[in-house]
Amino acid sequence: MTPSSASRYTYLGPEGTFTEAALRTLPESGTRELVPMVSVPAAFDAVRGGEAAGAFAAIENSVEGGVNATLDELATGAPLMIYREVLLPIAFALLVRPGTALADVKTVTGHPVAQPQVRNWLAAHLPDAVWESSASNADGARQVQEGRYDGAFAGEFAASRYGLEPLVSEIHDTANAQTRFVLVGPPGRPAAPTGADKTSAVVWLGDDHPGALLELLQEFAVRGVNLMRIESRPTGGGLGRYCFSVDAEGHITDRRVGEALMGLKRICPKVRFLGSYPRADEIRPQVRPGTTDAEFTEAADWLGRALDGRI
Amino acid sequence: MTPSSASRYTYLGPEGTFTEAALRTLPESGTRELVPMVSVPAAFDAVRGGEAAGAFAAIENSVEGGVNATLDELATGAPLMIYREVLLPIAFALLVRPGTALADVKTVTGHPVAQPQVRNWLAAHLPDAVWESSASNADGARQVQEGRYDGAFAGEFAASRYGLEPLVSEIHDTANAQTRFVLVGPPGRPAAPTGADKTSAVVWLGDDHPGALLELLQEFAVRGVNLMRIESRPTGGGLGRYCFSVDAEGHITDRRVGEALMGLKRICPKVRFLGSYPRADEIRPQVRPGTTDAEFTEAADWLGRALDGRI
Amino acid sequence: MTPSSASRYTYLGPEGTFTEAALRTLPESGTRELVPMVSVPAAFDAVRGGEAAGAFAAIENSVEGGVNATLDELATGAPLMIYREVLLPIAFALLVRPGTALADVKTVTGHPVAQPQVRNWLAAHLPDAVWESSASNADGARQVQEGRYDGAFAGEFAASRYGLEPLVSEIHDTANAQTRFVLVGPPGRPAAPTGADKTSAVVWLGDDHPGALLELLQEFAVRGVNLMRIESRPTGGGLGRYCFSVDAEGHITDRRVGEALMGLKRICPKVRFLGSYPRADEIRPQVRPGTTDAEFTEAADWLGRALDGRI
Amino acid sequence: MTPSSASRYTYLGPEGTFTEAALRTLPESGTRELVPMVSVPAAFDAVRGGEAAGAFAAIENSVEGGVNATLDELATGAPLMIYREVLLPIAFALLVRPGTALADVKTVTGHPVAQPQVRNWLAAHLPDAVWESSASNADGARQVQEGRYDGAFAGEFAASRYGLEPLVSEIHDTANAQTRFVLVGPPGRPAAPTGADKTSAVVWLGDDHPGALLELLQEFAVRGVNLMRIESRPTGGGLGRYCFSVDAEGHITDRRVGEALMGLKRICPKVRFLGSYPRADEIRPQVRPGTTDAEFTEAADWLGRALDGRI
Repeated sequence: MTPSSASRYTYLGPEGTFTEAALRTLPESGTRELVPMVSVPAAFDAVRGGEAAGAFAAIENSVEGGVNATLDELATGAPLMIYREVLLPIAFALLVRPGTALADVKTVTGHPVAQPQVRNWLAAHLPDAVWESSASNADGARQVQEGRYDGAFAGEFAASRYGLEPLVSEIHDTANAQTRFVLVGPPGRPAAPTGADKTSAVVWLGDDHPGALLELLQEFAVRGVNLMRIESRPTGGGLGRYCFSVDAEGHITDRRVGEALMGLKRICPKVRFLGSYPRADEIRPQVRPGTTDAEFTEAADWLGRALDGRI
Repeated sequence: MTPSSASRYTYLGPEGTFTEAALRTLPESGTRELVPMVSVPAAFDAVRGGEAAGAFAAIENSVEGGVNATLDELATGAPLMIYREVLLPIAFALLVRPGTALADVKTVTGHPVAQPQVRNWLAAHLPDAVWESSASNADGARQVQEGRYDGAFAGEFAASRYGLEPLVSEIHDTANAQTRFVLVGPPGRPAAPTGADKTSAVVWLGDDHPGALLELLQEFAVRGVNLMRIESRPTGGGLGRYCFSVDAEGHITDRRVGEALMGLKRICPKVRFLGSYPRADEIRPQVRPGTTDAEFTEAADWLGRALDGRI
Repeated sequence: MTPSSASRYTYLGPEGTFTEAALRTLPESGTRELVPMVSVPAAFDAVRGGEAAGAFAAIENSVEGGVNATLDELATGAPLMIYREVLLPIAFALLVRPGTALADVKTVTGHPVAQPQVRNWLAAHLPDAVWESSASNADGARQVQEGRYDGAFAGEFAASRYGLEPLVSEIHDTANAQTRFVLVGPPGRPAAPTGADKTSAVVWLGDDHPGALLELLQEFAVRGVNLMRIESRPTGGGLGRYCFSVDAEGHITDRRVGEALMGLKRICPKVRFLGSYPRADEIRPQVRPGTTDAEFTEAADWLGRALDGRI
Repeated sequence: MTPSSASRYTYLGPEGTFTEAALRTLPESGTRELVPMVSVPAAFDAVRGGEAAGAFAAIENSVEGGVNATLDELATGAPLMIYREVLLPIAFALLVRPGTALADVKTVTGHPVAQPQVRNWLAAHLPDAVWESSASNADGARQVQEGRYDGAFAGEFAASRYGLEPLVSEIHDTANAQTRFVLVGPPGRPAAPTGADKTSAVVWLGDDHPGALLELLQEFAVRGVNLMRIESRPTGGGLGRYCFSVDAEGHITDRRVGEALMGLKRICPKVRFLGSYPRADEIRPQVRPGTTDAEFTEAADWLGRALDGRI
C-alpha cells in the first residue's frame, strides 16, 4: 500500500449521500481522502487491491433491512473485516431550486429506498406529485438542479452542493429510522475491546440438516452470548441453501464469544469471522451469570486442578 | 368483486418479464386477465381492494435472496394469503436486433438483479461491453428495440414481443438459479393438503428478549417441523427490532404444524398466518417418528383415557 | 370390592411407624380400616386385588431420596394412580423403658434409614452407645420393650403403644427433614384440580438414543411446565437402560400439562400416567406467560380461524 | 500412608459377597490386603484417613438401581475419586448344607436386595418356602451353616467358605442382571485415557431455577457428550432440593468433555469431579462430527488466527 492509498477511504457514492454524511462523522475522515465509488463491490475491491485503507458502506437500515450488496461482499471474495460502525438517523429534506414553493412541486425524485420512507408525507402534503426514482438521492438532487424534476428527497447536507435549498426538513414516515454503516479494511487484529462491542460473522450451515440453525443458535445460547442480528442470505447453491450473517454481543476476546465462535467453527462447514468492533450505541451487555471472563478463567483453573487430582 | 375482477390476476410488470413467464405456467392463467402493475404494493392492493382475484410476484431468488417488497407487503397492511408457488429456473438470453453479431455488441442492459447473474459471462464473452441498468429486463429489451443499447439480458420469451432475436441463450453464471413466485389472494381457506405442502407465516418477537428466536425455533423443533426458510425483516421500530418470515414443511392441517403455530401464537406478541399451499417441488417431507397425524391422534386418545382414569 | 374392602386402606407396616402417623393425618383415616402390610408390594397388591380401596407408602425422603419399592411398584404391574400426597416432618424420639436415664443407654436400635439421621446426635450425646438395626422403627421399639436394647429411635407417637417413654424428642441431624407419602388407588378420574397440583408419570426412553432425556425435558420446557422431581430407575433390561419417574407442576387438565404429556406419549416408547393430585405444600405455580389455559384456548381459536381463512 | 496401608484395599464386607468376588477380578487384588468393612462409609473413610489405598463398593445394580450409600459418600465428605469400574453378572446359587435336597428346603434367606431377583424362581420351585432377610448374602450363608435356615441365596463362590454346597446355580429372575462396582482412591491424576472411558461427577443445581436440569444437559449436548447415567439425590436441604450424579462418555482429557465440565462449573453452584476411568465394557463412543479433539484443536487454531486477523 502506497502512502496515498493508506490514507484513502472509498465509499459507496456519489457524493452528497447519507453514506458520505455518515463517513464524515468518523474523526479520521478529516485527514483521509474520501473516494466515492459506483458500487459496493468497487468500494470493497479497492481495499482488497491495496488501493485504499478502508471502505465504507451501509449494511442495514431500520426500514429497509439488510443491504444485500454489503452483506454478500463481506461473505464472499477475499476476506475483509469490519473495524467500526456508524449509526445515522435518516431524515429527508425536500430539496428544490431556490424560489420554488410547495405548490410548484409537481414531480419529485429520490433513490428507490427513500420512497417508502416519504410515502406518507407525500400523500399528506403533495398528493398529486409524481414520483420517479433516480439512481441515488444525490443523483436526484442533481436532476433537480438540471430542471428535470421539481424536488428531490435527499439529506439536507446535499442542498448546497447542488445549489438547492431545503424546502421542508426532517421528513421521515417512520420515527427513529436509522441506517447502520460499517468501515471495512483488510484483515488485521480486531479493534481493541471497549466493553461495549459487537462481533460479526457469516456462518454456512450443512445442507439437508433440518436442525442446523437451532444448533447454531444453541452454540451462542449455551455460552450466554446474545445475537443482535441474524440475516439469511442465499449461498447461490439453489433455493433452500442459506448462510447466515450474524452480529453477536461482545468481543472475540471475551471468553464466551471466543468459545461460541469455536463451537460454530466445529459444527459448521464454513465460518467467516468479520471482526469485533465498538458498538455505535455504546450499550454494554448484561453478561449472564456463569459467562463472565472471570468465571471462564475460574472454570479453566478448576479443570486444570481436576486434571491433576487436586479436587 | 365483479365478474371481471374475479377473473383478473395482477402481477409485477411490465409484460415480458420472468414474472409474467412464471405466471403463465399456472394452468388457469389462460382464462384470466393478466394485468401488469408498476409495483408489488400496487399489485397486492388490487387484491385488497377487490379489483383482482389474485396477485403474482417473486418472493425469493436463489442468487439475490428474499424480495423485500413482497415480504413486507405480506407482513403489513390488510392480510393476504399465499395459495400457490411457482419455481422458475432463471436463464437469460442476450436479445439483439435482428442481424446483430456478437462483435457488434458494445452496450448491454438489463435489470440490476440480472447483472450479478451474467457478470462472469460478460467478462468471458464481451469483456469490453458497457453495462447500464434498466428498470426491468423487459424495459431493457424495449430500449434495445429503440436502438439505445445493442443487447438486453432478458428471458428468451421476451424476444418476439420486442422484435428481437436471442443471440445467445441459457446464460446464467450460477447453475440452478431459480426464482420462487407466489400467487396471493384475499384470506380464505388454505389450499387443500397434498402431502407435499408448505406453510408460511410472519412472526414478531417480543423486544428485549435475547432467547426469543431460539424459542421460536424450538416450537417447531419439538414438534418435528422443519423450517425451510427464515428471513429477518425490520419491523420499522428501529434497528434491532425484527420480525421473521418463515416457511415450514407441512400443512396447517397437519397436527404437528398446527400445534407449532399455536405455540408461536402463545409466545409471540404477533403471528400472521400466510397460508398453506402445495410445494412446487412436490417433495414430501420426512416426518419424524412421533409427529405423524396418527401419533398425534393416538396421544390425544391416550390423554382422554388418562383423564378418565382408563390407563 | 366389598363394602369392607371399600373402607380399607393398607399401608407399609408395622403399626407405630411414621407411615402410620402420616396416614392418620388424612381426614378420612378416622373412618377407614387401616391395615399394616409387610411390604410395599403387598400393600399395593391389596388394592390391585380389590381387597382395599387405597394403599399408603412413603415415596421420597429429603435425606434418603426416592423409595425404590414404591417407585418400582408404581412403574410396573397392574396400573395404580396417586390421589393424595402427605408431607411429614421427620423427627425422632429416643424411646426408653420408664425410668431409664441417658447414662443407662448402652445399646440403641432403629430402622437403617433412621441411622444417618441421628448419627450426629449419637456422636454428641451417646458416643459409646452401640447401634444395631432393626426391621422398622416400630420393631425397634418393641425390642426395647422386650429388653433387648436400651433405647429405640422412633416417632414419639410410638411410645405409648410399647409402654415406653420419650427420653429425648425432636432429634434430627438434618433440619427440615421430611418424608413424602402417597395414597394410591385403582385407576380412576384424577383428583379435581385445586390450582396447586402435581402430576406424576413414569417415562421410558428409547434405547440407544443419546439425546432422549433432553428431548423429554424439552417437551415439558417448551410448554412452560416445571419438573419438580426426576428420578432414574433401571428398567431391568440391563445397566444403562432407565426409565424416569417424574413429578411436574400442574394438573393433567391444565392445557400445558396435557400437551406436554401427549408430547411424551408420542416420542417415548412408553408412558405411564400416575395421576394428578393436590400438592401437600399448597404452593401454586408461577405459570409462564404464553402457557396459561386462557392462552392455549386463544391460540386454538386463532388456529381455527386460520383454517377458515379468517385471519 | 504406611507401606502396609498402601497395599490395602477396603471393601463393603463381609467376605463371601459379590463385592469381594468383583474386587478379586482386579489383577492387583492378588497383591493387596483386602479388608472387609461394615459399611460403605467405613470403607471409604479408611481411604480418607490414609489407612487404605483404595475402597471398593457397588455403585449401581441393573435391577435395584443406584446404591445410595456409595453415591452419597462420593458426593459428600472429603473428596475421593473413582479409578476403576468392574461389572459383575449377578446370578445366585441356592446354598445348602451338604445332603439337603430341594424338597427339604422350608426356609430360605439372603440380602433384601437378592429377594426381588429370585422371587420368580422361588414361586416356581419353592412356592411354600418362607423367606427371611439377612444382613448380607454371606451372612445368610453363615446362618445356613449354623442351621437357622435351610437355604441361602448367595454367590456360588461363597459355598466353600461356609461348608455349603450349591444345590441350584445360575438363579436370576432377570436375564443380564449386572452390578457395577467402583474402586475409589484419594484424589489424584485420573487414570490414563484408553479411548473407551467414562467421566463421573456430581452436580448441584441452583435452587428455584426450573430450567436448571435442562441447562445442565445442554452443556453436555452442545459439545456432543453423551450421558450414560443420571441419578438425582437429595441434597439434604429439604424435599425438592437435588444434586445429580452423572456418568458421561469420554475422558476429562477429551476436549469435548473438559469443555462441558467447565460449562457445568460455571453455571452450577457446585460441581465435584469424581474421576475419568476406563469403561469396563470397553465400548468406544461414537464421537459426533464437530466434537473430536482434532476439531477442537483446529477451531482453537482458527480462533487464534482470527485474533491476529489472519482469516
